[in-house]
Amino acid sequence: MTRALHDTATDATDVLVPLPDLDRRHGPWPAGVGVHVWDGVTPGSEPAEDVLARVGLWVMPYAVPDAVHLLPRLPHLRAVQSLSAGVEKLLPLLPPGVGLHNGRGLHDASTAEHALGLILAAQRDLPQWVSDQAAGRWEPHFTRSLADTTVTIVGYGSIGAALEQRLLACEAHVVRVARRARPEQHVHAVAELPDLLPATDIVVLVLPENPGTVGLFGVKELAALPDGALVVNVGRGRTLDTQALLDETRDGRLRAALDVTDPEPLPADHPLRRAPGVLVTPHVAGGSAAFRPRAERLIVDQIHRFAAGRPLLHPFPRD
Amino acid sequence: MTRALHDTATDATDVLVPLPDLDRRHGPWPAGVGVHVWDGVTPGSEPAEDVLARVGLWVMPYAVPDAVHLLPRLPHLRAVQSLSAGVEKLLPLLPPGVGLHNGRGLHDASTAEHALGLILAAQRDLPQWVSDQAAGRWEPHFTRSLADTTVTIVGYGSIGAALEQRLLACEAHVVRVARRARPEQHVHAVAELPDLLPATDIVVLVLPENPGTVGLFGVKELAALPDGALVVNVGRGRTLDTQALLDETRDGRLRAALDVTDPEPLPADHPLRRAPGVLVTPHVAGGSAAFRPRAERLIVDQIHRFAAGRPLLHPFPRD
Repeated sequence: MTRALHDTATDATDVLVPLPDLDRRHGPWPAGVGVHVWDGVTPGSEPAEDVLARVGLWVMPYAVPDAVHLLPRLPHLRAVQSLSAGVEKLLPLLPPGVGLHNGRGLHDASTAEHALGLILAAQRDLPQWVSDQAAGRWEPHFTRSLADTTVTIVGYGSIGAALEQRLLACEAHVVRVARRARPEQHVHAVAELPDLLPATDIVVLVLPENPGTVGLFGVKELAALPDGALVVNVGRGRTLDTQALLDETRDGRLRAALDVTDPEPLPADHPLRRAPGVLVTPHVAGGSAAFRPRAERLIVDQIHRFAAGRPLLHPFPRD
Repeated sequence: MTRALHDTATDATDVLVPLPDLDRRHGPWPAGVGVHVWDGVTPGSEPAEDVLARVGLWVMPYAVPDAVHLLPRLPHLRAVQSLSAGVEKLLPLLPPGVGLHNGRGLHDASTAEHALGLILAAQRDLPQWVSDQAAGRWEPHFTRSLADTTVTIVGYGSIGAALEQRLLACEAHVVRVARRARPEQHVHAVAELPDLLPATDIVVLVLPENPGTVGLFGVKELAALPDGALVVNVGRGRTLDTQALLDETRDGRLRAALDVTDPEPLPADHPLRRAPGVLVTPHVAGGSAAFRPRAERLIVDQIHRFAAGRPLLHPFPRD
């Protein structure tokens, strides 16, 4: 029997989610909505075909690329919710007509928090204290601070705003920079960087990787920073020119704290690992406990929106 | 010729300060007030006797205990401004009738900032990343976060308030505890700790050292914390029972981040240095660049108050 598109959509009232226990904490769900669980990794744990046939909204497991193998088994799928901000790789895999929603904002707190940790570690000499602790030294010295510094955030979006809130509480001054100026929000354009960088103590890159951002922060931008400035990257490694940074940190003129690098993973013998005043963490800014409760809140919200036929949050444009 | 006390005080209109360049940035001074500079360390740089005889307010050099040798050469001194919060050791050295003013608040931003840095370092595994960077490893893992945690500040005063402002911006919950309850400010009493600690993820000690606080946080308090909790100390080392902490961190049940220790300096072979999950910095929370501009603002304010005959800020009780 052939079913009309409308009937099909009406029948696909269920939601497949990757997190257990949502029922207990956030149920009961609206009448007529079934919420099923699949974590994407436990072998053989996929729901039965009759359940999959009722799934209209699929919240994909986080950071499980293989989970996409389930897509062909969801015949009445209307929308996919990813828990990642970057969903470019998913786009070509989705059947036409299926809505894509990304995890915008879910990693803001975690990423902003890690960026703040990197800044404080660099300003307050934490790597030095860590090595002194192990070496048996007790040699206090005055350090830099974050308070009173001017921090320029390049790529001012939701992560930048979350970072700004933390920086302001730490008594720093914040300068907002994005690809295009948004004067009503006091956001400067990237083109203004030559004027802004000489008065910057700490620059934080929060840029996505695309043809317009690769190598955006290079020899010229680094040279415009004053002596002793700190370069932080929590966006994508290729937006910062690694060789130019090595040249500026070799003699200690600039310092750096990087959660993302180019290349990545950073090889064991890469010179960035031993560059003076350079702190590296292995792309962990987004991956902390702060992610889970925010993901839960979004999923619960989307379930209620889906059940009520209201538009889902964070639609990602398809062509 | 004998001069009456009143005349003497009137003549002692000058101020001796430890920071150069105040004139250039904050002058001109009120009419009749001379501002002289002595840094407390440059040999032979003390002002001449006729200048010292006009000094009514002395702002002592910071962290230069030897500077007190100048006291007998200031015959018309009316007030001493220390840039430290703790001035107990100065009290017995001051002639009767000389007012003492402490550096309350000058180290708040610096200390709160360092406490935040210790917390973020511990929650986001920074010591691990520092050692991985040197060892050539790139092994990301999910970490704890500061967001969503409950942080109990024990010794809630001006440093605690500065820390709280930073923690709230990081999306943590804050519980205020002080020696005595101040219900109108939502401050709990230390006596309530047994009820508060089981729901605490991070406890921060910001206590001064006195007979009532030594050993305040001991076996019982540590045992009341849940598994995995973080103990932070930026107050005084002896307020935390070191042996009890070693017992609770040995098997990883609790973690710690300490800027102050007992004993201090921490000996090279002290077990705290190698305790798992314990981060130690060498009493550097107050000593950062954040101190200088705040000290300047206080000094300038006090000069104007002194010149106008208004009460100076932060009087410290004598007897």
